[in-house]
Amino acid sequence: MPDIHALLWPRHVALIGASAELESLRGRLMHTMLSHPFEGQIYPVTRSHAEVLGRKAYASVRDLPQRPDLAVLIIPAPYIPQALEDCGRAGAKAAVVLSSGFAEAVGADGSRLQAEIRAIAKRFDLAVVGPNAEGFANLPAALVPTFSPALEASERPLLPSGPRRGQITVLAQSGGIGFSFFDHGRAKELAFRYIVTTGNEACLETMDIAEYALEEGKTDALIVLLEDVKSPQTLRRVAEKALRAGVPIITAKIGRSEAGVRAAASHTAALAGSYQAYRAMFERYGLIEGHDIDEMIDLAHAMIAWRGRLPAGKRVGICTASGGGGGWMADTCAAAGLEVPMLDAATRARVDQHLPAYGTSQNPVDATAQAVHKIGYAGLARLVLDAPALDGLVIVITARSSKNLARQEAALAQLAAETTKPILLWSYTLPAPQSSKLLADAGYPLFTDIRNCARAFAAMADYRALREAFLKPTEVSSSGTVPDRAAARAQLKASDSVLCHWEARPLLAAYGIGTLPPARLVHSAAAAVEAAASLGGSVALKVQSPDIAHKTEAGAVRLNVFGAEAVGAAYGDLIAAAQRHAPSARIHGVLVEAMVPPGQEMILGIKRDRTFGPLLLVGLGGVNVELVQDVALAPVPLSHASARDLLLRLKGARLLNGYRGRPASDVDALVEAMVRLGQLAQDFIDEIGEIDLNPIIVHPEGEGISVVDALLVKERPAAGLPV
Amino acid sequence: MPDIHALLWPRHVALIGASAELESLRGRLMHTMLSHPFEGQIYPVTRSHAEVLGRKAYASVRDLPQRPDLAVLIIPAPYIPQALEDCGRAGAKAAVVLSSGFAEAVGADGSRLQAEIRAIAKRFDLAVVGPNAEGFANLPAALVPTFSPALEASERPLLPSGPRRGQITVLAQSGGIGFSFFDHGRAKELAFRYIVTTGNEACLETMDIAEYALEEGKTDALIVLLEDVKSPQTLRRVAEKALRAGVPIITAKIGRSEAGVRAAASHTAALAGSYQAYRAMFERYGLIEGHDIDEMIDLAHAMIAWRGRLPAGKRVGICTASGGGGGWMADTCAAAGLEVPMLDAATRARVDQHLPAYGTSQNPVDATAQAVHKIGYAGLARLVLDAPALDGLVIVITARSSKNLARQEAALAQLAAETTKPILLWSYTLPAPQSSKLLADAGYPLFTDIRNCARAFAAMADYRALREAFLKPTEVSSSGTVPDRAAARAQLKASDSVLCHWEARPLLAAYGIGTLPPARLVHSAAAAVEAAASLGGSVALKVQSPDIAHKTEAGAVRLNVFGAEAVGAAYGDLIAAAQRHAPSARIHGVLVEAMVPPGQEMILGIKRDRTFGPLLLVGLGGVNVELVQDVALAPVPLSHASARDLLLRLKGARLLNGYRGRPASDVDALVEAMVRLGQLAQDFIDEIGEIDLNPIIVHPEGEGISVVDALLVKERPAAGLPV
Repeated sequence: MPDIHALLWPRHVALIGASAELESLRGRLMHTMLSHPFEGQIYPVTRSHAEVLGRKAYASVRDLPQRPDLAVLIIPAPYIPQALEDCGRAGAKAAVVLSSGFAEAVGADGSRLQAEIRAIAKRFDLAVVGPNAEGFANLPAALVPTFSPALEASERPLLPSGPRRGQITVLAQSGGIGFSFFDHGRAKELAFRYIVTTGNEACLETMDIAEYALEEGKTDALIVLLEDVKSPQTLRRVAEKALRAGVPIITAKIGRSEAGVRAAASHTAALAGSYQAYRAMFERYGLIEGHDIDEMIDLAHAMIAWRGRLPAGKRVGICTASGGGGGWMADTCAAAGLEVPMLDAATRARVDQHLPAYGTSQNPVDATAQAVHKIGYAGLARLVLDAPALDGLVIVITARSSKNLARQEAALAQLAAETTKPILLWSYTLPAPQSSKLLADAGYPLFTDIRNCARAFAAMADYRALREAFLKPTEVSSSGTVPDRAAARAQLKASDSVLCHWEARPLLAAYGIGTLPPARLVHSAAAAVEAAASLGGSVALKVQSPDIAHKTEAGAVRLNVFGAEAVGAAYGDLIAAAQRHAPSARIHGVLVEAMVPPGQEMILGIKRDRTFGPLLLVGLGGVNVELVQDVALAPVPLSHASARDLLLRLKGARLLNGYRGRPASDVDALVEAMVRLGQLAQDFIDEIGEIDLNPIIVHPEGEGISVVDALLVKERPAAGLPV
Repeated sequence: MPDIHALLWPRHVALIGASAELESLRGRLMHTMLSHPFEGQIYPVTRSHAEVLGRKAYASVRDLPQRPDLAVLIIPAPYIPQALEDCGRAGAKAAVVLSSGFAEAVGADGSRLQAEIRAIAKRFDLAVVGPNAEGFANLPAALVPTFSPALEASERPLLPSGPRRGQITVLAQSGGIGFSFFDHGRAKELAFRYIVTTGNEACLETMDIAEYALEEGKTDALIVLLEDVKSPQTLRRVAEKALRAGVPIITAKIGRSEAGVRAAASHTAALAGSYQAYRAMFERYGLIEGHDIDEMIDLAHAMIAWRGRLPAGKRVGICTASGGGGGWMADTCAAAGLEVPMLDAATRARVDQHLPAYGTSQNPVDATAQAVHKIGYAGLARLVLDAPALDGLVIVITARSSKNLARQEAALAQLAAETTKPILLWSYTLPAPQSSKLLADAGYPLFTDIRNCARAFAAMADYRALREAFLKPTEVSSSGTVPDRAAARAQLKASDSVLCHWEARPLLAAYGIGTLPPARLVHSAAAAVEAAASLGGSVALKVQSPDIAHKTEAGAVRLNVFGAEAVGAAYGDLIAAAQRHAPSARIHGVLVEAMVPPGQEMILGIKRDRTFGPLLLVGLGGVNVELVQDVALAPVPLSHASARDLLLRLKGARLLNGYRGRPASDVDALVEAMVRLGQLAQDFIDEIGEIDLNPIIVHPEGEGISVVDALLVKERPAAGLPV
């Protein structure tokens, strides 16, 4: 197993391709590394000089006086394999390859070189970051093997002075963007632990580093820019560990659009999975998605500041001295899905004692500049914070001058230490640097973007709720029948690559997925009439052919057929229509199926993502799915709780709850079917490609669900999907 | 007419309530005003001192050596009326009332005082801003009658040095937020003309100042924070003037949520109209809605920088040296509704000459740091910009250091001067102040928020398209029948307050709104049978009662009834059901109406907003409207073009275009009906409250639309709605 600790915490570092020339990346790398108080040794390796920037240089890594822990390589791509091999022989444990010209370049040479790197790393068990990476920074160790200008020495310390802050680890394939989080976050007085940019990820990928950081236990939030995920299993494992530990992962996915995929493919040779599948993963494991550098920094700041005290709900109080600012914040909170409830009479009476006639205590609490001047932001917050209707507070401030804030520093710090409900600050003026420092020292996240502030509160509440549900002891499994795996396996084995409804039915029955209406497969009009008579009442007739997926469009289905004459005629019509529609279709027969009572039409299925594998899909039937794409996805398997949550994500979810006088639907039965369908997909992950139950009919409460059409497509092993 | 020029460009200014005490608002006001090089005279007025800050003070405004143009009042509310009256007598033309304690305060006194201000202003024809305002700033005149800390003297000039920039005027009721735009914008090197904060708006409101600024012709963009609109007619007029002049209005509406309305009401005694109605106004007149201070500043910056050269479409090219940054930008552009098309072969060949093997010219053009270093951002942009597939460009840069940019300054400035396609810059690192200045001087808007950058491009394209459509010569009126206003008036006059379907039909017929199926109102089963027979075929029977608005729920409607027996029975059933449902309902009879052929169900109607009056509403029928709220609104009257645009805003718009093999709907007939319905609402603006055509059936192309149920509610004059 590669030694990531040796990568991030080396004592002896070889710099292969060292140079003093400031105009070159090599020289910038060397200068940057030497300008910080790293306590280990840095050995320049170069053939062209005997010394670099006053340090003795070595012609080869094998000449060093000490075994290097880490080698940093910045020489042309073609020389990298040999140099890396030398590092391995010299006993190095880790390497960072900064050079470009590998799999991301046009032509076959780059890919070949990258494969060589991978092989050498494997042979010597090297922890290799890159190639085409911009390096990393270990801020507590002042070790910065990178040429990123963001790490050049400046008057700002690498870690903020003042009280110890929670630390952020940033992981990105992209060097430019990876280090920009540091650049933006430092200005907001945030503390970073590691910034690691992984480039092409020939060996280590971002999630490997994330796992190290989680196990080390000193990272309080992760910021991860995802271009592609080479090992989805690692992402799932890391996401689960992080959620368990309460270390939020704030992430942005590159490759959401076609052009973004194009860019990622060329940039880091990434094969991006579908964005929908990523979102399903994010929702399952509580990854918080951001869409801008500052937004992600702001989210991390809030999550770190209030770790362990995240809001128990979404009811927010707003304190302000600016009426306009308070109103704007209220609107922004509402748009972010928060509630801004009226305060109770007792709280209002407490607040009102301090307000002039033109203030108001309703919420937003517009205390006016006069009252805030008198009792301070902390005093005002304390009056409001105890209101039982509130889960936390946003204070609208002006941090343009630090003078007023300095006066209140101790009171603010004490409040931050004592409160059990989180407090966020939004400044409508640009904060003075001293204000940012003072407030960060006092323990508060300070926002300048009003949307980010409201979003952060909502994200904190969502994260807490999701994590608490996740940590709950697993529910007892449902009381229904145990899936008959053997029967399912036999049915799958006996079937062709596409299972139409009558072939899929036994599989669904084996797993107890919904109710299947009584039915018989027939091959003549006479048999159809007899089957209909034995089923009784109206029937549906459905042509069964693996070559006709859309039966309705093909005229290959008839509903509500009643009586011998009608059934006989329908049989003939259907066969004729099917043959007209697809003359070469294989027709297995016609399924005569009892009609089911009405209910809410829905679709349920399994889709397959090339990165993450099977996902369960659920949606409301009819025009809503088609036009508004009202579907929700989750990775399988699902718990009952997550199946229930998934339903709530549908825009039309309230159709299930007895909407407009209709009876409420049997959501319990639907949830049970979702869980069982997920289990089926998981149990036969190598065999099942897609499943389409469309439609299912969800009957009123207590009456179950009926599966009235099913289609199953087997997985083709040739497709080379990651499993 | 109040003299706004005297307000904003006074030569002699009386400061009533002047003080030297820096701890008080009065003192801050005086200090702030004196710290800038205003060329006019400032006269302190106070009874307590003979001089203030070295200037001779006067006991009353009537003692001044000169007639004051403008009086700035900052004395307790109860003294304001007398002081304002003195100003009027002394010949002042304008006043700013900064004091609080008027209509925004609890109790009746404040409202009374505010009414007095209004009366005095009227008597002396004074241009009065406030009360409860934070004052204003005229930056070119260095006149800043405000105590806002944002206007205190600092090392930054009030207007940026360097080439003349387009100027922004900011208008807000809220002082804190109003001046915060200046605070944020100044850091981005933007030039402001006026910032006017209007507080309670006893006399002048933001839109009056906006109109002055537009007529003056020296404002290039307006930023307007809207809390409430007291004269919707002024908003419409100003919005139209601004659109005609090509001066964009970037706006945020406070009071979108319940809590926001609460805040606005208490803060500035505002009565907010419905947010939906505001949005309809914004969409009609191209107001650009922002949701954050920086976002609005960024939008203004882009609009000003590229005024006259806004993008002709939404196809954007992306140039970058950071692969990750380019991919992220591509995704963000796609999310903002932009296209990021592949570049043509000729353009790619031009670009490829300059790229190393690991760059790519597809779009995003990832030129790599190496190529950008060689040919510069401007060089790269020129290679890409001519691509016929592009309407403009986004360049991903790092502005952390200004050194590289300084080298390219001349080339960048020349490109900005010459290009006909707009170019936006996004820096993923925090820009150095020198970078911001350099790029602003060169003519570029620089973004740090990636979402704002993509949004700005989309907003520029939308604004141009909307403005071009608006400026097109009005279309020739439709060829159909001319509305019979007299018949409509007579029908309205003859009816009660609620017109059910059979009473609304003649009105719709008079305006040629859709086709009305043949129908007869009957009062007995026998008459129903006779009517059905004369109509022929299946009929619908509908109970006509002004007291039963929801006929379906009441069981008061039957569709597809055929044959004498069925019609007779249905008549009895319907009357019984209606009486059961609402025993005291007045029943006018039963309408027997011919069934119409099938088509797309929609709803069409007139809603009334208490601020903006009648709005036309259109939506897709059925579950979409109810669950997804798939409706669109526009102020009446509508042109054919805006009716067509409105349809495109529906999420399910493509249902109308022959979706999934169904025939395309008669959109022309629908548009015609929308225009005519809007005309009806406009013609009887005092008489008609609401109209509900639900449903209408839109038949296939060339076959028109049928109105199968209508309800009209007359306007009650007692409601005191603004008309």
